Amino acid sequence: MVSSSQAAATEAPRHRVVIVGGGFGGLHTAKHLSKSGYDVTLLDKRNFQLFQPLLYQVATGALTIGDIAIPQRVVLRKAANVTCLTATAYDIDPERRVVLHEYGELAYDTLVVATGVKHHYFGKDEWRAFAPGLKTAEHAIEMRRKIFGAFERAEMTDDPQLRDELLTFVIVGGGPTGVELAGAIGELAQKVMVRDFRRIDSRDARVLLVEGAPQVLPAFDEKLRVAARHHLEALGVKVMTSTMVENVDAEGVRIRSGDTLTDIRARTVLWAAGVRASLFGQVLTERLGVPLDRGGRVRVAPDCSLPGHPDIFVIGDLARLTDARGREVPGLAPAAIQQGRYVAATLKRRANKKVALKPFYYRDLGSMAVIGMNRAVGDLRAFKVTGTFAWFLWAFVHIRALIDGSQRLRVFVQWFWKYLTRRVGDRLVTGAPTSTKTLRAERLDSPPPTPKP
Amino acid sequence: MVSSSQAAATEAPRHRVVIVGGGFGGLHTAKHLSKSGYDVTLLDKRNFQLFQPLLYQVATGALTIGDIAIPQRVVLRKAANVTCLTATAYDIDPERRVVLHEYGELAYDTLVVATGVKHHYFGKDEWRAFAPGLKTAEHAIEMRRKIFGAFERAEMTDDPQLRDELLTFVIVGGGPTGVELAGAIGELAQKVMVRDFRRIDSRDARVLLVEGAPQVLPAFDEKLRVAARHHLEALGVKVMTSTMVENVDAEGVRIRSGDTLTDIRARTVLWAAGVRASLFGQVLTERLGVPLDRGGRVRVAPDCSLPGHPDIFVIGDLARLTDARGREVPGLAPAAIQQGRYVAATLKRRANKKVALKPFYYRDLGSMAVIGMNRAVGDLRAFKVTGTFAWFLWAFVHIRALIDGSQRLRVFVQWFWKYLTRRVGDRLVTGAPTSTKTLRAERLDSPPPTPKP
Repeated sequence: MVSSSQAAATEAPRHRVVIVGGGFGGLHTAKHLSKSGYDVTLLDKRNFQLFQPLLYQVATGALTIGDIAIPQRVVLRKAANVTCLTATAYDIDPERRVVLHEYGELAYDTLVVATGVKHHYFGKDEWRAFAPGLKTAEHAIEMRRKIFGAFERAEMTDDPQLRDELLTFVIVGGGPTGVELAGAIGELAQKVMVRDFRRIDSRDARVLLVEGAPQVLPAFDEKLRVAARHHLEALGVKVMTSTMVENVDAEGVRIRSGDTLTDIRARTVLWAAGVRASLFGQVLTERLGVPLDRGGRVRVAPDCSLPGHPDIFVIGDLARLTDARGREVPGLAPAAIQQGRYVAATLKRRANKKVALKPFYYRDLGSMAVIGMNRAVGDLRAFKVTGTFAWFLWAFVHIRALIDGSQRLRVFVQWFWKYLTRRVGDRLVTGAPTSTKTLRAERLDSPPPTPKP
Repeated sequence: MVSSSQAAATEAPRHRVVIVGGGFGGLHTAKHLSKSGYDVTLLDKRNFQLFQPLLYQVATGALTIGDIAIPQRVVLRKAANVTCLTATAYDIDPERRVVLHEYGELAYDTLVVATGVKHHYFGKDEWRAFAPGLKTAEHAIEMRRKIFGAFERAEMTDDPQLRDELLTFVIVGGGPTGVELAGAIGELAQKVMVRDFRRIDSRDARVLLVEGAPQVLPAFDEKLRVAARHHLEALGVKVMTSTMVENVDAEGVRIRSGDTLTDIRARTVLWAAGVRASLFGQVLTERLGVPLDRGGRVRVAPDCSLPGHPDIFVIGDLARLTDARGREVPGLAPAAIQQGRYVAATLKRRANKKVALKPFYYRDLGSMAVIGMNRAVGDLRAFKVTGTFAWFLWAFVHIRALIDGSQRLRVFVQWFWKYLTRRVGDRLVTGAPTSTKTLRAERLDSPPPTPKP
């Protein structure tokens, strides 16, 4: 390996590292390989990294998507040895050591796969159309459109049954995302939007959080689960635990609690339940025969490489790994970041012919969930925190974790403003509205329509 | 008219004002009728007002859409007598005094039409698909996708001709929007993105500004036009005046200068040329026989009402009006705001049976255009300003003009950050990227593809 990129150009070809996926894992791998002498290419479908832990705030209007997304090439602009490319990869050829993508192929000496997970509808893919999940920027904008569009339509209609359906919000899944979404919608209805409507009272909105387990936040400490439920109920959220979703369609959801089936009519159903490994897991098993777990994740060796393939690493949510202390590494942003840093360090040691690092171990910093303003729960290993202190800690930790100074400033300003005014930033319902031209063409020469409800 | 909305509920039905269109004109009418005793309904296709003068900054990544858009109902939350509804209106029935909209109808006693203008492609509607305009939030996001997507694709490709086409940007129309767009793209290529790519040099981008008149900014003073051209050229923009666009398609544009026809291959063509009145102008002429001008605008009486229909007002870009001083009122935000205020004042005087206001006159505050950071031109009637001072004045005026405190703070923070770091805020290419699943289905069982350029 050589020192500067200029020098390298005239010498032997540099070792090529191709990273597929520019989320937390991929981006941090690239960042830590900056100025390493490796020739690094970061390939992603999108030209930006998303700070997914705050995506629910975009879906519920507290932040705008530009606050929490940043082009990878901006983050890596000083890393002259790193090239960012926007293209969808769909296969590899391990014989020739190339990644196949939509515009052609890319040769690697070392491959890092960090393509993450996507939503999983328990095999009921037809539910997807009615219950958007929350993994991408487009998902968040779609959720925002559904949530605020429902309030708009409710203000418009004169039909009381339709109004009730529009003001019923069902969130499926009581993990952190579901809890945070339910809390944020409850806060919108009970606090933020109270003065904004004339024909409806936003406080009439029903927010239902449906969870199959006996408690929300199953991964948290008992005391925190109780606090979370209490915070949710204070924001008018009805928490329905030990409850399964049996069906989702345009009318709403069917739930089962014990032997009782209930149909809930709701125009907005949001999915915060299962995830499944992205398709690149399948690519790896088809091309290399590596085993996947039940969720489609790739089982990796203790150093994050594929067993028998020391030139291929899998990190982040796509990897299934039991760490050096025998604990399952969770699918969380800090784990992906730590794995990215670990793989970069491993490669740098290999380049310098140093002995390999010890197996990866996950440094658990705890987990938090926020439930409206001033209310959060935090499981920080030794301490359990709740309430206002937890909220401030959560806000501090998340602002600090944002990768770029401009994002930190923007999010800080936005939260500070919300704190002072109780108003949120971006409640836009975007997407093409009904066109005047179409309505004119359809209805102009017919008699005035009977008013729709 | 009565004093409080509570009292009104039990008394005679209040006079109903329906405002169609929630842009500058409609929103300011509603704002100035707040607490007036009128029962006001503001109807818009979208749930937000857009600060259009800064829309080009969203298209070029300096601001994010949430910075310059705000729900009308948030602006009007304290106006208990104003109801905001999100619905597309498409017709009126002047006999029954109702507005027809997508969900039914709405009765009015007084109607204010403020539906603005849309893009006009000189009768060549087929150009629209290749050359997006800049009137709506979706347009700005589409332009942003085209501009930043072209740089991404250019970084990807190995085909030098395709790369040149991708790095050629044609802006049609040399008015303020065209000048500002061209300046912003020039600044991105020459300053903001210089360190961001590895395979291309962003400074190789060609930005062409095509204007039919002999000079850009035809409405500005001669000295300012020269300054604007100079500022544009400093950012690498090629200014092509006295040049007509003959054709636009997926390959680029055909232009005519004198008798010379030239084909310019460009993957990004942006439309900043003609506008035409929105379809509501046609509704008014069909239902009431009022005359339209060549651009489809509605000729109004000196008090902004329709001649012969004192209960119907047309304001903003849709109105064609010669003001009390004999000058044509221009299609600019300040004119729409002043007309909204004027119509609200007229209605309040009618309610109190006071004598009518004098005819509307437009208070011309001048106009400005910004060309990259630190460079602007301003035509402030008595003074003509250029350069850095003009830029600071422009920034101050625009921040002050934003309707909401949170927007002012956000835009200020964003500009301040850009000023310090030369980096812009939101360069996201959103919209569904190519799906891995589709690529896999198409190509998995076929031999590895020959690389596309």
